[in-house]
Amino acid sequence: MSAGAGPAGAAAAARPTSAELDARDPLAAYRSRFVGADDPAVVAYLDGNSLGRPVATVPARLAGFVEGAWGDRLIRSWGESWMDEPTRVGDRLGRVVLGAGPGQVVVGDSTSVLLYKLLRAAAAARPGRREVVVDRDNFPTDRYLVEGVAAECGLTVRWIEADPDGGVTVEDLAPALGPDTAFVLLSHVAFRSAHVADGAALTALVHDAGALVVWDLSHSAGSVEVALDAWGADLAVGCTYKYLNGGPGSPAFAYVRADLLPDLQQPLWGWMGHADPFAMGPGYEPAPGIRRLLTGTPPVLAMQPLQAMLDLLEEAGLPAVRAKGMALTEHAVALADERLAAYGVRLASPRDPAARGAHVMLEHPAFREVTALLWERGVVPDFRPPAGLRVGLSPLSTSFAEVERGVDAIAAALADVSSS
Amino acid sequence: MSAGAGPAGAAAAARPTSAELDARDPLAAYRSRFVGADDPAVVAYLDGNSLGRPVATVPARLAGFVEGAWGDRLIRSWGESWMDEPTRVGDRLGRVVLGAGPGQVVVGDSTSVLLYKLLRAAAAARPGRREVVVDRDNFPTDRYLVEGVAAECGLTVRWIEADPDGGVTVEDLAPALGPDTAFVLLSHVAFRSAHVADGAALTALVHDAGALVVWDLSHSAGSVEVALDAWGADLAVGCTYKYLNGGPGSPAFAYVRADLLPDLQQPLWGWMGHADPFAMGPGYEPAPGIRRLLTGTPPVLAMQPLQAMLDLLEEAGLPAVRAKGMALTEHAVALADERLAAYGVRLASPRDPAARGAHVMLEHPAFREVTALLWERGVVPDFRPPAGLRVGLSPLSTSFAEVERGVDAIAAALADVSSS
Repeated sequence: MSAGAGPAGAAAAARPTSAELDARDPLAAYRSRFVGADDPAVVAYLDGNSLGRPVATVPARLAGFVEGAWGDRLIRSWGESWMDEPTRVGDRLGRVVLGAGPGQVVVGDSTSVLLYKLLRAAAAARPGRREVVVDRDNFPTDRYLVEGVAAECGLTVRWIEADPDGGVTVEDLAPALGPDTAFVLLSHVAFRSAHVADGAALTALVHDAGALVVWDLSHSAGSVEVALDAWGADLAVGCTYKYLNGGPGSPAFAYVRADLLPDLQQPLWGWMGHADPFAMGPGYEPAPGIRRLLTGTPPVLAMQPLQAMLDLLEEAGLPAVRAKGMALTEHAVALADERLAAYGVRLASPRDPAARGAHVMLEHPAFREVTALLWERGVVPDFRPPAGLRVGLSPLSTSFAEVERGVDAIAAALADVSSS
Repeated sequence: MSAGAGPAGAAAAARPTSAELDARDPLAAYRSRFVGADDPAVVAYLDGNSLGRPVATVPARLAGFVEGAWGDRLIRSWGESWMDEPTRVGDRLGRVVLGAGPGQVVVGDSTSVLLYKLLRAAAAARPGRREVVVDRDNFPTDRYLVEGVAAECGLTVRWIEADPDGGVTVEDLAPALGPDTAFVLLSHVAFRSAHVADGAALTALVHDAGALVVWDLSHSAGSVEVALDAWGADLAVGCTYKYLNGGPGSPAFAYVRADLLPDLQQPLWGWMGHADPFAMGPGYEPAPGIRRLLTGTPPVLAMQPLQAMLDLLEEAGLPAVRAKGMALTEHAVALADERLAAYGVRLASPRDPAARGAHVMLEHPAFREVTALLWERGVVPDFRPPAGLRVGLSPLSTSFAEVERGVDAIAAALADVSSS
C-alpha cells in the first residue's frame, strides 16, 4: 500500500489487511488456476464481470479438442457427443449455477439472439396483451431488444424508473403491471449498480398479473446464487463470458421452465431446432423440449472454455463463491471509503453486500480519463459513461491484495489527473 | 488398389493413377498442413464438405489467443482488436473467397440466425409483395426459415421443383417470378447434388422481376469461386465450418451489397448492431454499415480457426483450389463408374465437373448400412436420407490416393453388406 495514495481513515486499523484476508480465504488457491494470475503486466484485473480470465486448463483443453474430437473423430463426433452438447452443458449449468432442473437450459447463440427468441416467445404466449415492461437502467441490449420486439409485435413499452444506485424493487414494479402486461424483462444483478433483484418476489408479482417474467442473469450467473426453479421463473437468459469465463463472445444460455416448453414458439426455425434435424424432411416441426430454442449448428468449439470454469465452480460451490464475492466487494467499498472518498469518489452501488453482486460501481467526473491511465498501468477496471468506474471482482480469480492494488492505483491516477 | 474391390473398366488403363495425379498436383503439399492428415485411424476423410479438418496451426493459434489477447490483454482487447474482428475477417473473406469488396461482409452468429436476419430484411425491403420463392431441394434450414419468415410476415411460399440430380436453372426459376415476388432464396452449390447454380444469370433474372435474391454459399465458399459483386447479388450467407475449416459450429458470414445497407432493417436489435454500442444510450439506432447485421457480442474466440484456413486459401488462390476440386470429383466419378456401378450405385450429381462443386452424391439403397460400416473402418463420408452417400472432397486437405481408398472401401462395404 502506497502511503501517498490517499488519506487513511481512522477505521482502517480495525479492519483486517489484504494479506490477512487472503490468508484466511478458503478459495485463495483457485486464483492460481487461471491464466495470467501472476502476470506482472496485470497489476490488478478489476473487470472479471465483463470478461473472466481463462481457466489455466483451457489451452490444453482446446488443443485436445482440435486434435481429438474435431481432428481425429471428425464428423463422427456429431453423433458421438456434439449434438447433445447444448443440453448437456445446459443441464450442468442449471445444476451448478442456475438452480434449474434438467431439460430446461440450453447453450448457444449470443445472449442477445437468445433474448430475442425468448421475448418473441413471451409475446406469443400472451396474445392480446399489449404492454411489455422494462426498466430504463437495464442493460442496453435488453432495452433495444424489447423496443424492437415491441415495435414488430405492435406492443407498447412501459418503462420503470428505479433508483439508479439500486435497482428494480417490488414497489417499483407493482404500479407498472396490469391485465394488459404481456411480459416483464428484468436483470437479476444490475449491470451498473450491481443491485441484486429479489428473484422470488418479483417473479410472484409478475405472475399475479398473469404475465411472464424474463430474467437476464448475465451479471449474476457464476457469482451470485440463482434459483430459477425455486423462484418459479418463466424464462431466463445469460452470458457465459463474464463470471463463467467462457472467453470473448462465448455462447449464451437460455432457460425455459419445463411446463412452458410444449407451447413455446420462437420464430427462428432453423434445422437444429427441428424435432428430427437429420431426417431433413419437408416442413418445420419444433423439437419437443428445450432444443426448440436452437436454430443453427451448435457452437461446440466455443463451448469448451466455459466447461473448464464449470469444473471449478462445481468444486468450490456457489455458496462459497458468493460469500467470497461479498467479502471482496466489502473490501473494495471499505478501501474506497478510506482512500477515494477524499477525491470526491461516490459509491453508486448498494452499501449492503447482500444487496449487491460481485461488482461495485464508483462515480467521479474524471473516471473516463482515469480509466485510460489505469489501463496503461496494468490496472483494468471498466468505464461506464458518463462517470462510472466499475470494479468487477470475479470471486475465484481475484485476491484481496489485488483489490487493494487496484484501489490504490485509482487513487494515484486521480491524483495525477487532478494535478495535470 | 484392391483387385477384388470391384470390376475394372476397360478405360481404367487410360486414366492416370492416383499416385500420378498426386505427383502432379501443385497443391499436394497443403495436405500436410492439416491436423490428422497422416492419422492412420482415418483411412479416407470424405466429408470435408460437412466439417473441414483443422489447420495444423490451430492448436497453437488458440493457445496464443487464450494466453495473449484474452489472458494478458483481457478486456483491453475489445478496443485493441476484437470489436473490428467481425468486419476485418469479413472483409478478408470477401476478398479471398467471395468476390466481395470491403464493407459488405460480416462474421458472426450461426448461418441459420444470419439467414433469418437476411430473410426478414429482404421481406421488409419489398413491402406489399406477397410471395417468396425457394426450391424444394434446398437445405432444410433454408426451407424451414423461409416457411417461418413467410408465416410471420404473411407471405406465401412458392416452391420450385428442380432436377434433384441437378439444381435450379433459369428455366426452373423464371415461371415462379412475377410482380408479387419479394425475394428468392437459392443455394449456390446444392447440398445434395453439388449442382453449381449460375450466380450471375439467376441474380439478373430475379432483378428483372424487381425482387431480391438471397444466396446461400454454405456448400461453395472456399471450394468454388464466388463473385458476389460481379453477379450483382443482393444478400448472401454462408457457413465457415465446411470448406473454410472453422471448426464445429464456427460463426457464419453474411453479405449485403453496399448500396442496400443504408436501408437494411433486421429485427434483432442487439447492442453490437447499434451505431455506438458503448454509449449505452436510450433508443436503438442501427450502425451505418454492415455492422447493423450484428446483434450480440462477436464470437471472437470461435473466429480464430477459420482465419488459419484463410491464410492457406489466400496462399493457394481460389482458382487453383477450384481446379483441384474439379479434378478430385472427376477422379471420384471415374472410380465410381469403374468400381461401384456394378453394385448398382448411381451418380446423383452432374457429370460435368464444371457444373458441380467439390462433392459428389452417390445413391444406393444400402448406403445407410454401408456408411455405418465405413465409419467403423475409418472411412468417413456422409449419409443423406433416403439413399445418398456424399463424398465431399475438400481440395487442400484431400489427396487423390485418399479418394481411391475411399471408393475401394465403399465397394468393399457394399460387397460385405450384400453378402451378409
